[in-house]
Amino acid sequence: MRLTHRTATLRLREPFTISRSTDEEVEAVFVEIEADGVVGYGEASPPDIYGETVDSASAFLDDVDGLLGDDPFALEEIERRLAERPGEHGAKAAVDSALHDLQGKILGQPVWRLLGLARAGPPTSWTIWLGDPDDMARRTEAVGERFRRLKLKLGGRDGLDVERVRAVRRVTPLPLQVDVNEYWELDEALENVRQLAELGVQYVEQPLPAAHPEGARLKKESPLPIYVDEDVHTADDVREAAERAHGINIKLAKSGGIREAVRAAHVARALGLGVMLGCMLESGLGIAAAAQIASLCDHVDLDGNLLLAEDPWQGVEFVDGVQLPSREPGLGVREVVSRPR
Amino acid sequence: MRLTHRTATLRLREPFTISRSTDEEVEAVFVEIEADGVVGYGEASPPDIYGETVDSASAFLDDVDGLLGDDPFALEEIERRLAERPGEHGAKAAVDSALHDLQGKILGQPVWRLLGLARAGPPTSWTIWLGDPDDMARRTEAVGERFRRLKLKLGGRDGLDVERVRAVRRVTPLPLQVDVNEYWELDEALENVRQLAELGVQYVEQPLPAAHPEGARLKKESPLPIYVDEDVHTADDVREAAERAHGINIKLAKSGGIREAVRAAHVARALGLGVMLGCMLESGLGIAAAAQIASLCDHVDLDGNLLLAEDPWQGVEFVDGVQLPSREPGLGVREVVSRPR
Repeated sequence: MRLTHRTATLRLREPFTISRSTDEEVEAVFVEIEADGVVGYGEASPPDIYGETVDSASAFLDDVDGLLGDDPFALEEIERRLAERPGEHGAKAAVDSALHDLQGKILGQPVWRLLGLARAGPPTSWTIWLGDPDDMARRTEAVGERFRRLKLKLGGRDGLDVERVRAVRRVTPLPLQVDVNEYWELDEALENVRQLAELGVQYVEQPLPAAHPEGARLKKESPLPIYVDEDVHTADDVREAAERAHGINIKLAKSGGIREAVRAAHVARALGLGVMLGCMLESGLGIAAAAQIASLCDHVDLDGNLLLAEDPWQGVEFVDGVQLPSREPGLGVREVVSRPR
Repeated sequence: MRLTHRTATLRLREPFTISRSTDEEVEAVFVEIEADGVVGYGEASPPDIYGETVDSASAFLDDVDGLLGDDPFALEEIERRLAERPGEHGAKAAVDSALHDLQGKILGQPVWRLLGLARAGPPTSWTIWLGDPDDMARRTEAVGERFRRLKLKLGGRDGLDVERVRAVRRVTPLPLQVDVNEYWELDEALENVRQLAELGVQYVEQPLPAAHPEGARLKKESPLPIYVDEDVHTADDVREAAERAHGINIKLAKSGGIREAVRAAHVARALGLGVMLGCMLESGLGIAAAAQIASLCDHVDLDGNLLLAEDPWQGVEFVDGVQLPSREPGLGVREVVSRPR
């Protein structure tokens, strides 16, 4: 098998603000793996908070070609060889995605079908990024009827987070989920979850910093389910997450691909945890890979490609709020060559 | 899809004695599922200690036809429908096996390859069933060089279990594993594991009765790894098993098939447990299904078909102590019509 890769800049429809940063564009790495004339595609969205960058992912991918071998079906073995290089989960996810795409094309079946899964998962949430309460409410009104759940980015550090949710609650009947991205301290979290429960929020994602020593206490006292994101990467982290959370947010860019994401979901289920599927700011290629396993999850947050000004990859269908993977073989995506305007 | 089934009697090469019973023959149910002219096969070996019988399995299979639907790839959905009927894990494993066989045949690939796994797992153990110490040693000598590990059935209730292992240890350098099938009490177990550790035993399987309240204490004090069998059926049982054991014995007849067995293995890994793959007294059809996932496991005990006077199903290759699944599509098995002798 032969691997090639290139970087691409994805421009956002509007600047994306979370507690940590504001982005106007993001960089991604597109991977192609070719075997016997068939090509599989994958996208790397290196999570910067884990120290991964487009450069580190590219350097990893330069090196990895020789570790692939010649059998695109030997996923377990390839995964084991790649695991000898630590980190770079974004790049590993791209390789895993390209191999799944390749397999599906060779066998003439979509990946979700090869995994024994249903095509449709729960509706995706749509992200309302961090802003003043009024501003978030205005942006919520602009969403209209396209989405069936909203995810509010909180962590303003100004004591107004509950007010943000209240402002949004006033203008929409949709289920609300909130993502704090580690920005609350314990007292704030204990107080806020009580107030958010009264506003009909479904769950609170990563309220405390990862590995916060009082995570278990917050879980115990919270009337709302706590989901963790920054606290859990792979299946091995799920046991500890179970002490501090009611559910986990799985992302391919953290797990290193579909295969480990499925493992993490199984472990979460066996430990009685809910499962949420998240994404990065990424194109329809990365979203297509994640959408294959959406039906395994309770909550889906796969709006990354919908936040782009132009999505260079077609294939995922957005139908009635659900990000549906294609019925075509593999990931079922094709690249759209954008014309200058 | 259309399901048919029939019972078969499997005659044992020699009577098989464990702590609970002696068997000269066992009954199995062979299942066929047909879709568009392609036929998949599966074997049900209903575990009697869970109250499953060939009759109860057959009754379940009579009923199940209408729940299969028409898509052999929709494993998750079919599994969910079957799960609405409690128990009958043996019969469910036969259905799961037949569906995997069918899928592999439709796609032209062996099941292990579709699962992303390697073909070869660890060598299988060979069972030395319960008898007097001298008798067990004699039978060990007769094994010769065919096998690379031995599994000794203990639980004689006569204070001679350690002597059994000592007698066998004198006549073979092979790695030894022991299976007590729930027949020790705590004091006996604590004493025996210490002595067995000195005899170079690899692990002790199910020393205490399932759900024994002192299981965690035995785990803590044992110098040998404790594996549980009767204590764990599906992925949901693994968390509790982790408190009382260092590893779990997965059997398709307990888990209800390959799919749940893989889940249980993932959960075990994430909880730091070892994984052993066991079997029933079953033909090469059932063994073929289990052998597909042997490479996921640390220890393999798949000698069921080798204990039969005649194995009606060919396909699994026994090579240098390893039960290798076929390279042919699906489970790669075919039925041998035996001629009267």
